[in-house]
Amino acid sequence: MSTPRTLHLNAFLMSTGQHEASWRLPESDPIANTKVEHYQRLARIAERGKLDSIFFADSPVLFGEVGRRPAGKLEPTVLLTAIAGATEKIGLIATASTTYNEPFNLARRFASVDWVSGGRAGWNVVTTAGPDAARNFGVDDQPAHAVRYQRAAEFIEVARKLWDSWDDDAIVADKAEGVWGDAGRIRTIDHEGKHFRVRGPLNVPRSPQGHPLIVQAGSSESGKDLAARCAEAVFTAHQTLADARAFYADLKARTAAVGRDPEGIKILPGIVPVIGATEAEALKLERELDELIKPEYAREQLAKTLRVAPEDLPLDRQLPADLPSEDEIEGAKSRYTLIVELARREQLTVRQLIGRLGGGRGHRTFAGTAEQVADAIQEWFDGGAADGFNIMPPVLPSGLETFVDQVVPVLQDRGLFRREYTASTLRGHYGLERPASRYAGIEAPQLTSIGSGF
Amino acid sequence: MSTPRTLHLNAFLMSTGQHEASWRLPESDPIANTKVEHYQRLARIAERGKLDSIFFADSPVLFGEVGRRPAGKLEPTVLLTAIAGATEKIGLIATASTTYNEPFNLARRFASVDWVSGGRAGWNVVTTAGPDAARNFGVDDQPAHAVRYQRAAEFIEVARKLWDSWDDDAIVADKAEGVWGDAGRIRTIDHEGKHFRVRGPLNVPRSPQGHPLIVQAGSSESGKDLAARCAEAVFTAHQTLADARAFYADLKARTAAVGRDPEGIKILPGIVPVIGATEAEALKLERELDELIKPEYAREQLAKTLRVAPEDLPLDRQLPADLPSEDEIEGAKSRYTLIVELARREQLTVRQLIGRLGGGRGHRTFAGTAEQVADAIQEWFDGGAADGFNIMPPVLPSGLETFVDQVVPVLQDRGLFRREYTASTLRGHYGLERPASRYAGIEAPQLTSIGSGF
Repeated sequence: MSTPRTLHLNAFLMSTGQHEASWRLPESDPIANTKVEHYQRLARIAERGKLDSIFFADSPVLFGEVGRRPAGKLEPTVLLTAIAGATEKIGLIATASTTYNEPFNLARRFASVDWVSGGRAGWNVVTTAGPDAARNFGVDDQPAHAVRYQRAAEFIEVARKLWDSWDDDAIVADKAEGVWGDAGRIRTIDHEGKHFRVRGPLNVPRSPQGHPLIVQAGSSESGKDLAARCAEAVFTAHQTLADARAFYADLKARTAAVGRDPEGIKILPGIVPVIGATEAEALKLERELDELIKPEYAREQLAKTLRVAPEDLPLDRQLPADLPSEDEIEGAKSRYTLIVELARREQLTVRQLIGRLGGGRGHRTFAGTAEQVADAIQEWFDGGAADGFNIMPPVLPSGLETFVDQVVPVLQDRGLFRREYTASTLRGHYGLERPASRYAGIEAPQLTSIGSGF
Repeated sequence: MSTPRTLHLNAFLMSTGQHEASWRLPESDPIANTKVEHYQRLARIAERGKLDSIFFADSPVLFGEVGRRPAGKLEPTVLLTAIAGATEKIGLIATASTTYNEPFNLARRFASVDWVSGGRAGWNVVTTAGPDAARNFGVDDQPAHAVRYQRAAEFIEVARKLWDSWDDDAIVADKAEGVWGDAGRIRTIDHEGKHFRVRGPLNVPRSPQGHPLIVQAGSSESGKDLAARCAEAVFTAHQTLADARAFYADLKARTAAVGRDPEGIKILPGIVPVIGATEAEALKLERELDELIKPEYAREQLAKTLRVAPEDLPLDRQLPADLPSEDEIEGAKSRYTLIVELARREQLTVRQLIGRLGGGRGHRTFAGTAEQVADAIQEWFDGGAADGFNIMPPVLPSGLETFVDQVVPVLQDRGLFRREYTASTLRGHYGLERPASRYAGIEAPQLTSIGSGF
């Protein structure tokens, strides 16, 4: 008899919450985005709820109008390291760009976070859309979508080779003989690819998880291909059960098609849970938040995303009919399509669309009681649409506290979620094995020529 | 009447200690290099001694023969972030390369560490010598020495502009009006230089110190020029008072020559204190450590540094007469010259030279009682050779504990060192001001076109 399938839950943490107006609530600390104590507190709440992991989105650019909502974020590997010291079990997932980093540096940093956290590090691989980020790195425009994804796949391959460059038993530490490491078990990787040439070895011993967990969140065709080949967890955004189920089946099939076990990739749609003691109370909270959105900010961003002028988007009319197709978009393709389809399907005015996006940024918003939220989660989980959820509280810390204290117990009572941690690593929480090194048992050439040691 | 001049002390932390054989002692944990608890313990010892800062050297390459001594290190900004949570006052200085990083990423990471630590971040700027590091970044050989230093100067300039891109009062957080940041006080930097084009702004609000402290350690001509223009603290290596005094006078003069206050740059030579209850005991400890060195490892490294074959360095003869001049060295120029001059001046055999380098890696080793170590420190401090010292314990944690518990009280009793912290930031410990933003008071152009915020 097999173990019953259970949910995986990640908490998506974002200053005062997902809702763009959350910072305006009386309870919110508007400068929480620079305060490590705020994030340590959130992580401890998530750990109290036995969640698998916490996660920070990221991009190397100042996003959005600075008037609109808290802008600027601490670099995620730094922030998660600070959180590691304030927690014991919960997984720590940082976003980092393959377009604007070097594989040696990033592989090393994630290996270091994995050591510092005792095996709790995860890396959400992003390719970083948009010309604004490019201009922070001496490039006038972003590389083409396909090129960014090719680079990402090779980047992950290089990182994994570097993580394998030390055997697990490479350190012999023989004090009597004066031999610290076994040079036969530490090797160069000599990677020569289209985007990278990297010699190695990494300058960090193999980390507790072997490989930090690889997470991916792009849902374009290229994004799904990359996920099928490389990802172990996927964050995704869907508004309907049918869409989520189609995505789930597609990605599991793509994963099997490249020879991987589909169980080895966990699919977590996002949900923005707006929780009230009654459904009416939840809807009231949602409405109060939406009423705090200033539409002039949001309309400008929407116009930019849709590649039209703001004046072509009157607030009380639907989107214009003649928008570009996804093929013409070089940026965040899946996000673009999701927004346009949402607006068309529900015949939303620009003002209504802005409310929906301001609340969940394209993710599914669900307002209801704790029982109803648990029902919504279970429906997708049982319905072949999810292995778990990316929980995106609209307001922090209160929305996370409510989820942990009210929704998690319902899920536990239904046998859908763990009552205690049964593992101490991020891979363990997601039910994934620690990978063996690809090089284990292969004698390495002697590395005597590396480095100058004085 | 002016305040009496007092010492600045930094602890240079390196796995089991500076001495290459320290890991072989019974007391040493040979795998301490991956253990955050080890470094947190060391930092707390240093903080108990009221030291200004701790420091990690670094290079993006696996150094040295792995058999010889603990190899591989956690990435320093990650490690220092973990230490920040275990300490309250002590400054945290991480080495990072300007040759193998992008300014936007690194400026952001140091600003993040500054936030997480409450204003205790420092950056030791290095240009990373050697072809082995280059080969981890797709480059066959290191860029020329002069080019690396030009890039470093521009890199620091870009970082400082990014750190200034938010005014200190850019966040207004007006909940009632729904205005979070003032776009007139956050600006692009639009840097266009020889090595970098960076638009900005940084995606982190201005950090507690404004600018993390800039440290520099290269002592070549290019290194001294860079330090004079940019550095606020300098780590340096000298074997004699005369050499240290000449360096001190030269660097202070260069700093004045570029229009900076020479008080604004603190010069800290390295010292490896081998401390015993008696002088004889200290010398015995030093001898025991040196006897644990395996000369075959060290000779190979020395040969590489000197650009000769290992068989040209018989262990019991002096260095060959026909070595290259510093001008021919593209790597760590000042390190090369220091080694050759040390060997020639003291007429050391290769075996003796290896002992000296294994103990202090070119830095001054001083064996004696706590009083004698304090005398050695005071002699250079009073003699115009130092503003303080970079303390490099040969064995960790014991060598740091002995220094803190025995030497520091002597220095305190002589009025040369603080008894309590009088500041809470790294700049404060070093007696340096928090810099104003270069842009403060200048109205920024509106940033409405940056980013896509959904």
